[in-house]
Amino acid sequence: MLMHFPPQLPDRMERFYVQYIEDWALCNGLCMRDIDNSHAVHAPVTMFPTPFSKSGFEEALRIQCAFNELYFHAATHEEWLLGHLEEAAKHDDFTAKLIQIHKAAKAGQTQRLTGGLWRSDYIVNGSRTSLEGRQVKQVEFNTVSVSFGALASKVADMHEFLSHASRSWTGHGEVPQNTALKDLARGLANMHAGYKVAEIQHRQATHKTSTSAVEDEDDASIMDDPVVLFIVQPDETNVMDQRLIEFELVKEHDIVSYRISLAEVPDFVVRTNDNRLLHNPSGREIAVVYYRAGYAPSDYPTDVEWNAREMLESSHAVNCPSALTQLAGAKKIQQVLTDRSVLTKIAPSLSSDTVDRLMKTFVKIYPMDDSPEGEQGRYYALREPDHFVLKPQREGGGNNIYGEDIPEFLQSIPTESWAAYILMELIEPPKITNRILRAGKLQSGRVVNELGVFGTVMWDRNHNELLMNEQAGWLLRTKLQDSHEGGVAAGFGCLDSIQLMGPLKDDN
Amino acid sequence: MLMHFPPQLPDRMERFYVQYIEDWALCNGLCMRDIDNSHAVHAPVTMFPTPFSKSGFEEALRIQCAFNELYFHAATHEEWLLGHLEEAAKHDDFTAKLIQIHKAAKAGQTQRLTGGLWRSDYIVNGSRTSLEGRQVKQVEFNTVSVSFGALASKVADMHEFLSHASRSWTGHGEVPQNTALKDLARGLANMHAGYKVAEIQHRQATHKTSTSAVEDEDDASIMDDPVVLFIVQPDETNVMDQRLIEFELVKEHDIVSYRISLAEVPDFVVRTNDNRLLHNPSGREIAVVYYRAGYAPSDYPTDVEWNAREMLESSHAVNCPSALTQLAGAKKIQQVLTDRSVLTKIAPSLSSDTVDRLMKTFVKIYPMDDSPEGEQGRYYALREPDHFVLKPQREGGGNNIYGEDIPEFLQSIPTESWAAYILMELIEPPKITNRILRAGKLQSGRVVNELGVFGTVMWDRNHNELLMNEQAGWLLRTKLQDSHEGGVAAGFGCLDSIQLMGPLKDDN
Repeated sequence: MLMHFPPQLPDRMERFYVQYIEDWALCNGLCMRDIDNSHAVHAPVTMFPTPFSKSGFEEALRIQCAFNELYFHAATHEEWLLGHLEEAAKHDDFTAKLIQIHKAAKAGQTQRLTGGLWRSDYIVNGSRTSLEGRQVKQVEFNTVSVSFGALASKVADMHEFLSHASRSWTGHGEVPQNTALKDLARGLANMHAGYKVAEIQHRQATHKTSTSAVEDEDDASIMDDPVVLFIVQPDETNVMDQRLIEFELVKEHDIVSYRISLAEVPDFVVRTNDNRLLHNPSGREIAVVYYRAGYAPSDYPTDVEWNAREMLESSHAVNCPSALTQLAGAKKIQQVLTDRSVLTKIAPSLSSDTVDRLMKTFVKIYPMDDSPEGEQGRYYALREPDHFVLKPQREGGGNNIYGEDIPEFLQSIPTESWAAYILMELIEPPKITNRILRAGKLQSGRVVNELGVFGTVMWDRNHNELLMNEQAGWLLRTKLQDSHEGGVAAGFGCLDSIQLMGPLKDDN
Repeated sequence: MLMHFPPQLPDRMERFYVQYIEDWALCNGLCMRDIDNSHAVHAPVTMFPTPFSKSGFEEALRIQCAFNELYFHAATHEEWLLGHLEEAAKHDDFTAKLIQIHKAAKAGQTQRLTGGLWRSDYIVNGSRTSLEGRQVKQVEFNTVSVSFGALASKVADMHEFLSHASRSWTGHGEVPQNTALKDLARGLANMHAGYKVAEIQHRQATHKTSTSAVEDEDDASIMDDPVVLFIVQPDETNVMDQRLIEFELVKEHDIVSYRISLAEVPDFVVRTNDNRLLHNPSGREIAVVYYRAGYAPSDYPTDVEWNAREMLESSHAVNCPSALTQLAGAKKIQQVLTDRSVLTKIAPSLSSDTVDRLMKTFVKIYPMDDSPEGEQGRYYALREPDHFVLKPQREGGGNNIYGEDIPEFLQSIPTESWAAYILMELIEPPKITNRILRAGKLQSGRVVNELGVFGTVMWDRNHNELLMNEQAGWLLRTKLQDSHEGGVAAGFGCLDSIQLMGPLKDDN
């Protein structure tokens, strides 16, 4: 079906829709704290849900559980994982410090369950003349502090509202529901339930072997109503995206959460002699530590934050994620896993068909070390950089170097630290025109889209057993074509939703 | 049941609840636009739902339909109503102008249906040692632009959330549901439906008597999907309270609304030759004009606004309210209706029992004119003002003079303009301690509460027939005791909800 996109608004109707969007966003939690933290501003959003390849979208959702399983294997092959990060750790204090925390906590053998709220990010690649049939190509796999699940659900609701209020302006594509908010909250609720089961078993076992260990009569009653601890950045603006999950936890699962920064952990969290965590003011036990901070070096300005992370990791609480799981999200690991032989060795539980489908989502990624593949990577980076992007191995976004900027950048840093980067083939996204509302101002232009698919996982470290593996909704981020980075909170991109399309008439 | 109120928070738990409140408010539309209109800030709210007399609350809800019926009669006894406002009109241009608009529109005999979203405001009066058994006393009856229905529903939801998240901190009282948001939207939806029925009848009748009058073939299809026009102040901050009703209209009733100021009416509204209104950019017919502005002289800085009001009034659209209905909310009418013989004459449909119950909610109100009652009023105002409040006859709040300030104020204005005021017995509210969160700051102290009960009405002007008469939820506004005015938007009061109580231990 051919259609004109974006649709034309009737003359002078723009202001009514702009006002609708702003106020719907502010009325429904589709917003963020302002930088001074006293106000809310509407989140940047597209006016129209972007047409998106139906087959690509569906495949991205379907393959999420296979990616969850793959990264579960990666995060539990400790020796293999740390081996691949050894070189990076030499040049990157952050990686080295996370490894150190993992090892210190592991010595205590405290955590039994590990949790993950993950997100796999894709760009559609392929022909410029038809969306249908295009393939999704993986940009990165995120294992820590994935954001925008709640706001992604809200923006889909908002587009549905606008379509309704305007009598279907959005177009002809089927608009898929987005269950990310509910799914992510359910993921945390399952970790909370898992903790309770594991603790009951642990205490019964401890009681049998050593009667003196369970002296405190309050133990059982405290455990009846444990909480989730959200670790957040002290100056967070993306508060509603987190709070909506907290409110969903209360409403649907009767689970309370409290939020503090890493620096506040010593003030508000106590670790008991038997390695349980207590939220001090409420006196309630902490079942799950959910990190929405701690993914970047700037989250650890002093040893206070590193010590806090180590204390949380060295406890019975389900860490979401553990330090090791966070490390599994390094770009280096993504690069290594594009090799089919490595992938099948690490994740033997995946069928050959599933591996085929995973491989189809990969683009070429080169290391930048002095291995043979690294030599190849260095060659392209310096000589033919046009179709590549250079990325640091850590998560977080915002530090990528594109195309012809790569050689100059590499020459500005010591050759020894090149190994802390990977070189990735650029994905050529379809170009579509859309309108973006940011801080009450409409912009219009060619945009590119990045699809994220959420996954929720939990496993038992004692038995390397996957206890939860779910696809958990999706996210579409859209940015104007001339902006290379897609971070919504950083002010470059915006939240979008989807209308599923077959062949699309390209506007120009 | 005795209880301690307000409850004590565990040490250092305050910040967690303060943050909860701010973010819940911002995530759920319990907020307002900031003065610069680009941000949302949380609405000022109490931390705890205030204990409130169960019998008083229930009686206030039960009697709303009788008040609706009484003011329907007052607003449709045109000659009687205008007679009582004659004196005020001499001294008050605003009243005079509304009367003029009513007369001009009436000459055209255009509107068939009149709508009202009304609110009756009460303070609990009585013993200081027990809330139970106290009576509600009416402060005023509002017939135009009543606000905070949507936010009142949200604050009740928020208190329920907090009670849940904190494992019942709020106390022991039953927390009544507040359906104001849904009920007010349903009231507008019923007016919208009423307009469609009335217009179809009108057009069929016109078609029979004059075939040339219905030339335009688009007429019927345009009418299929008419809209509601919200008339709002250009610098409105209480936007969410209005938008939530608009969103409810779309969600539950599939009715779209557009919002403009009176000054924008000439740009965005066209009156057809047959006196229908069209929203110009969308081309859609306007079924209901809902005023959330136009209640104060400052809403009409120039003739543009007055002309706009007259044009809207002189149309087929259901005006909510009409100019005459707005005038029925004058304090003068409230004063006159406290006389049982007047009340029974104006509203003969009310049973003697119902009249008894209405009379119980009244306190003594004196005119300030040169009638015998006025002489009495002037005596109290000048000689024994301590237990009285002097109020201008218009709605809107914010201009009341209390107790010993009255004599000096009266002496500062011409004696001829005293008739534009009424003198009302002060109601002695129970004093309760509560905590208020405003702009992120907690205040604590003795507070007083004002209960509002919403009503929705619609009548047929041709047959003086009441077509809708519903109680439509409630509102509790709370202010610190040392602040005389209770306006939430003006920054003096805050939104609250209720826990229903029997006897209450007064804290000190």
